[in-house]
Amino acid sequence: MKAGINFTPGPSQLYFTVEDHIRQAFRDGIPSLSHRTKKFEKIYQHTTNGIKHVLGIPDHFHIVFTSSATEVWERIIQNLVEERSHHFVNGAFSKRFYETALQLNRKPEKTEVPEGEGFKSIENQQTELIALTHNETSTGVMLPLEFIHAFKESHPNALITVDAVSSLPYPRFDFTKIDSLYFSVQKGFGLPAGLGVWILNDACVSKAEQLQSKGISIGSYHSIPSLVSHALKNQTPETPNVLSIYVLGKVVEDMIRRGIDLIRKETDYKAAILYQALQQHELIKPFVQEKTFQSKTVIVAETGSHTGKIKSFLEARGLSPGDGYGKAKASQLRFANFPAHSKETFELLVDTLAAYTG
Amino acid sequence: MKAGINFTPGPSQLYFTVEDHIRQAFRDGIPSLSHRTKKFEKIYQHTTNGIKHVLGIPDHFHIVFTSSATEVWERIIQNLVEERSHHFVNGAFSKRFYETALQLNRKPEKTEVPEGEGFKSIENQQTELIALTHNETSTGVMLPLEFIHAFKESHPNALITVDAVSSLPYPRFDFTKIDSLYFSVQKGFGLPAGLGVWILNDACVSKAEQLQSKGISIGSYHSIPSLVSHALKNQTPETPNVLSIYVLGKVVEDMIRRGIDLIRKETDYKAAILYQALQQHELIKPFVQEKTFQSKTVIVAETGSHTGKIKSFLEARGLSPGDGYGKAKASQLRFANFPAHSKETFELLVDTLAAYTG
Repeated sequence: MKAGINFTPGPSQLYFTVEDHIRQAFRDGIPSLSHRTKKFEKIYQHTTNGIKHVLGIPDHFHIVFTSSATEVWERIIQNLVEERSHHFVNGAFSKRFYETALQLNRKPEKTEVPEGEGFKSIENQQTELIALTHNETSTGVMLPLEFIHAFKESHPNALITVDAVSSLPYPRFDFTKIDSLYFSVQKGFGLPAGLGVWILNDACVSKAEQLQSKGISIGSYHSIPSLVSHALKNQTPETPNVLSIYVLGKVVEDMIRRGIDLIRKETDYKAAILYQALQQHELIKPFVQEKTFQSKTVIVAETGSHTGKIKSFLEARGLSPGDGYGKAKASQLRFANFPAHSKETFELLVDTLAAYTG
Repeated sequence: MKAGINFTPGPSQLYFTVEDHIRQAFRDGIPSLSHRTKKFEKIYQHTTNGIKHVLGIPDHFHIVFTSSATEVWERIIQNLVEERSHHFVNGAFSKRFYETALQLNRKPEKTEVPEGEGFKSIENQQTELIALTHNETSTGVMLPLEFIHAFKESHPNALITVDAVSSLPYPRFDFTKIDSLYFSVQKGFGLPAGLGVWILNDACVSKAEQLQSKGISIGSYHSIPSLVSHALKNQTPETPNVLSIYVLGKVVEDMIRRGIDLIRKETDYKAAILYQALQQHELIKPFVQEKTFQSKTVIVAETGSHTGKIKSFLEARGLSPGDGYGKAKASQLRFANFPAHSKETFELLVDTLAAYTG
């Protein structure tokens, strides 16, 4: 495991500096630091400021921590939907968010297309909230930013929420066009799993307060008002994953030093050479056919009856691909293209795939 | 921080072996391990088997993971209470659990006594669930096990849930007398914060299913049926804090090797010498007066106007006490007595307190 490169789309390859930061954290007493200290508040502030810097988030957005992006789904429905959310579903994760709304006794609606496809047009939805999945981790479909950014104008009364779990820090969102954005740290940021990050604006706070004033329960410690009132003091409602918040701040600092533009350019380059290799291969092809929707950060290969053999071939050379998701396990392989995957690694991956001839 | 001993009752002093286990985890690729692998299932099983062994939990109980004990409060109310829970409140944390039930639109009731006190008698409550806090971390009150174990007989139709956040692994519960027990790892188990552990029986599963069949929402990914159906396969509904689940299993293994009886005996010894020192001191006394309710694991000293000076005096000698909770910050100090605090450390603490003469 350690010896090879992990291309699973999360938990994935660790960012280069994670182990060093954890070693330093032990030297500085972070793993046993009380979250009710000034020292913790400084860590919280450093991490959230770093995230704002690297993703270009305006100052008036709040950044709060959950335990996972899965938790964010639940909190969004509890806090931001009285009755009706509208979900754009094209794979397992966007579907699970829709199902979360059902489990919480809302009446969600959906626009659904087959796995591997994107959406053609925006119809006008009568809804409180639009749920978009920027990058569907299960199938490798990435929605164009213009598609996401178009909703605000056509749906001025709906909150626009974006799942960017497996795409950030790559995309450059326009924060005048979205109200809420979230990710988890074990994907593009290359940390061990166990922390979700939720970015939201005051329209979300108002909506939660409005539901609360109607007597609707919006949850307890992780309601938006509870999360945000603590965040304004650089605190958390409960004892959080302090170590992960610390390491995230350090990794973001490293990414800022390296340059987010460079990271984005390298992501484009790595995606381009892998898609080219898949196109040119006689036995493999990209699962997502339409170029517009081909994910830059989770690249899915249709490997058919060669799946097991290609996996072994790669693993023997220190490259661990991710399995296809769910029932596609037998016929697809997934390759994460995160900042922790170097150009050299991708060149090696491309060469190795080309060398596989059945 | 690293140089001194951390007596804060959580996040607290790390268990002696935690840093080594994390180093080994990195060598074995655990921080980037996918939770959808056989290797993760083995880790889950090893950790839950270890917890069952060290705490004497019968095989038919389920062990599931949340992000914190705070989350468990919310999940208990969502899944196990249609209308009425009854809370025994004697401090900030037992009170917050009661408030959680209010926030989730239930109609909780409470038996409340002043901070620093325990409960005298069990009145018969018409309720679905009895919420007991074995050890009130804010005040250092520990309820006798006989008190906790008496509820099952007097309340055969209620579920008995026990918050043992800051007492485990010390207490030896009778699992025929309780239905649900929970803790978080950053206290007695000496891990970095970011994981809650919830132990529950099939009566809890049935109750959750019963609420669900009535059309009541019991949450989404962390509903009891979702947690338990995954646990039966040694899996989790969402991407969990894999590293923490791994380290917990290793620490529990260390505790089993050391012997839980020895750990309990040492806890008794350390508590005894510290309470004796507080009793004999001219300027300090134990906050909890009644011996029956004096916590063995979180010992609170009434330090009055000497609080700041004693804190500095101890810190100058490498001993970091926990502040008093909330408004008691100015007049109390708290000392965690967890397995990570050695006998030698406590002897040093006692000697140092004795040497403080104002």
